[in-house]
Amino acid sequence: MADASSASALTRASVEAAQRMIANDVHRTPVVTSRSLSAAASQMRSGAAPRIRLWLKCENMQRGGAFKARGAFCAVRRLLGERGWVEGGGRERGVATHSSGNHAQALALAARSFGIPAHIVMPQNSLPAKIAATRSYGASITFSGPTSSERHHTAAQVVARTGARLVPPYDDVDIILGQGTLGLELQAQVRELSREKSPYALDRHDEPSSGTAQGDAPRVHQPTTLDAVVAPCGGGGLLSGLALALSSSPTRLFGAEPSLDGTDDARRGLHSGRRISSVPATATIADGLRTPLGIYPWSVIAGPPRLVHDIYAVSEDEILAAMRLLYERCKLVVEPSAAVGLAVVLFDPEFRALAEKEGGQDGWDVGVVISGGNVSLDSLGDMLAQAPRI
Amino acid sequence: MADASSASALTRASVEAAQRMIANDVHRTPVVTSRSLSAAASQMRSGAAPRIRLWLKCENMQRGGAFKARGAFCAVRRLLGERGWVEGGGRERGVATHSSGNHAQALALAARSFGIPAHIVMPQNSLPAKIAATRSYGASITFSGPTSSERHHTAAQVVARTGARLVPPYDDVDIILGQGTLGLELQAQVRELSREKSPYALDRHDEPSSGTAQGDAPRVHQPTTLDAVVAPCGGGGLLSGLALALSSSPTRLFGAEPSLDGTDDARRGLHSGRRISSVPATATIADGLRTPLGIYPWSVIAGPPRLVHDIYAVSEDEILAAMRLLYERCKLVVEPSAAVGLAVVLFDPEFRALAEKEGGQDGWDVGVVISGGNVSLDSLGDMLAQAPRI
Repeated sequence: MADASSASALTRASVEAAQRMIANDVHRTPVVTSRSLSAAASQMRSGAAPRIRLWLKCENMQRGGAFKARGAFCAVRRLLGERGWVEGGGRERGVATHSSGNHAQALALAARSFGIPAHIVMPQNSLPAKIAATRSYGASITFSGPTSSERHHTAAQVVARTGARLVPPYDDVDIILGQGTLGLELQAQVRELSREKSPYALDRHDEPSSGTAQGDAPRVHQPTTLDAVVAPCGGGGLLSGLALALSSSPTRLFGAEPSLDGTDDARRGLHSGRRISSVPATATIADGLRTPLGIYPWSVIAGPPRLVHDIYAVSEDEILAAMRLLYERCKLVVEPSAAVGLAVVLFDPEFRALAEKEGGQDGWDVGVVISGGNVSLDSLGDMLAQAPRI
Repeated sequence: MADASSASALTRASVEAAQRMIANDVHRTPVVTSRSLSAAASQMRSGAAPRIRLWLKCENMQRGGAFKARGAFCAVRRLLGERGWVEGGGRERGVATHSSGNHAQALALAARSFGIPAHIVMPQNSLPAKIAATRSYGASITFSGPTSSERHHTAAQVVARTGARLVPPYDDVDIILGQGTLGLELQAQVRELSREKSPYALDRHDEPSSGTAQGDAPRVHQPTTLDAVVAPCGGGGLLSGLALALSSSPTRLFGAEPSLDGTDDARRGLHSGRRISSVPATATIADGLRTPLGIYPWSVIAGPPRLVHDIYAVSEDEILAAMRLLYERCKLVVEPSAAVGLAVVLFDPEFRALAEKEGGQDGWDVGVVISGGNVSLDSLGDMLAQAPRI
């Protein structure tokens, strides 16, 4: 991370600055709407039938296949601008991290873009496909034991040996600001899409339309802001970045976690008012969300001010069912972690009751962050076959 | 189809009129760029190493999961505006077609949107998933024998019994004009994307960039038009519509077909100067492209003027390899037919030699139509497992 003396404040203005900084590094990913999926979300289920219009932010189509590229480019560009870092040989020493997942690939990609080395510590038992992907971005990989402390220990050795700067996966100001750019972009895209042509023009009050070719103009629904955004929460870099990005808007922000084996540490922490600093070993299919909330993310999420309205947890079957729908109805290749937000919208009784009550007849426009698409194509058939159909 | 007396001319202006007509019916689907896939297309392969920048037009995200919604909405809106059709009870009698694929679903969707009945003839041996999808749009389904003549016969019976108007899948002026709207939209999107922020800013001459955070501004590459568009060709509704849409631009249009069992009827017809009116029974995995070129499409494609530069044919393995890359690199759920255009760009020696020669150092910006995403999720695992890796 950049040194504390030059660190940015955790504010919306800092997210805006990060957005300008990485504008040419990352994709402006599509926002996809779907009448069919919105109808599925609006059926009576889990005791409520809210009217939901979905706006899916497709970070599975981000560079490197996940939103993590935003934070990684932000962190690397900040390093390049940090006083003395380049002059002190930083470009030659490079950057380092420990991760078996999307952050490793994103940091390797960002480093390669500026021609600086990336040293990645991965546990020995990482999936071969993830190792190959990280290596394909030109990173130098060091293997560690599988536990968290072994990874940290090996990463410290690598940093000592190489002089590389550690870029943590989520507990870092620049990473948080980078991930937050997704929220600004989503807000702008919903405004643009609503202005040029409302994707839900025919759906506000009735479907099918009975208008004729020359007859009734379609009722145009123009949300200026989303009513809610739902995003997955692992270490909390994304959720805290979004909290900053949305902090001056009326949009309510919700977190989504898997519940298996008590992985819902953020939800339990938020409800008890105390950060839970470790999660049990878990086999949740949402492998990107197996980490506890970081300290910086916690400080933003828990407040004050309270920027996250609530966090909900969903079952493995609910995650798989949501994932299958994203393939079937939206034609999106997503990893299981990326379906956790949609699973909350489809299945969580509290979220649905709230949307029904607050949205009423008009309904709610709900942004859902589809966080990544780095799934093993070899296991995809089995996962989709296991998924319950709704 | 609309009656001949009110038929539109097969011109670019008619495609523009169709675009205004269906603007609120169909999605403006995303155009996706990928440095990784473009790099794969630019490697030395099949004897050439052209510099390729890809722009993928994602019609797998169109309503109903395929570009066919464009033509279907265009045909139904034209019917609703046709003199005497509504007054003569057309809305009650509805529309009809014979199709086991995407056109059936698209017509059912368009008809339902206007509250008119859709009568769909499907062969008995259609996939249960396709039957269920067509039924889910509220269509009334009649089963026929599996051969083409049995389907036509049953469709004629249905039309005689119901008084519904037949809307053919491709051999129809309004269908062609509707599919052509995809070409206008793609051109506009490439202009917009290039103006606001070039997705290939860093890639024009060198990668990785060696610029620093404050240093070199990225070289901005701004194509005002694509150099080429590649689209799959079955009955030719899409390819002929694109030909009209691109007819006043310098963009070269190419068709793509599977070669298995002689399914490349359009390619062979174009080269011999005579339309081939039937194709052999074939097991090509590109099941959407098993039909011969229609008469109207042929008249546009073959010219004069010659609006399609050439048509190329690819093998089953090439289609599967391209399909796998779309899942892996672009996170797109596509059906095999939708990968045939990319397979041409990746593998066809003639296309690649031409792109290398004409594109030179600057390279080519190539639009590729990703035509649909209606693949059975149950067979997806097997298809991806069979695909050769490149």
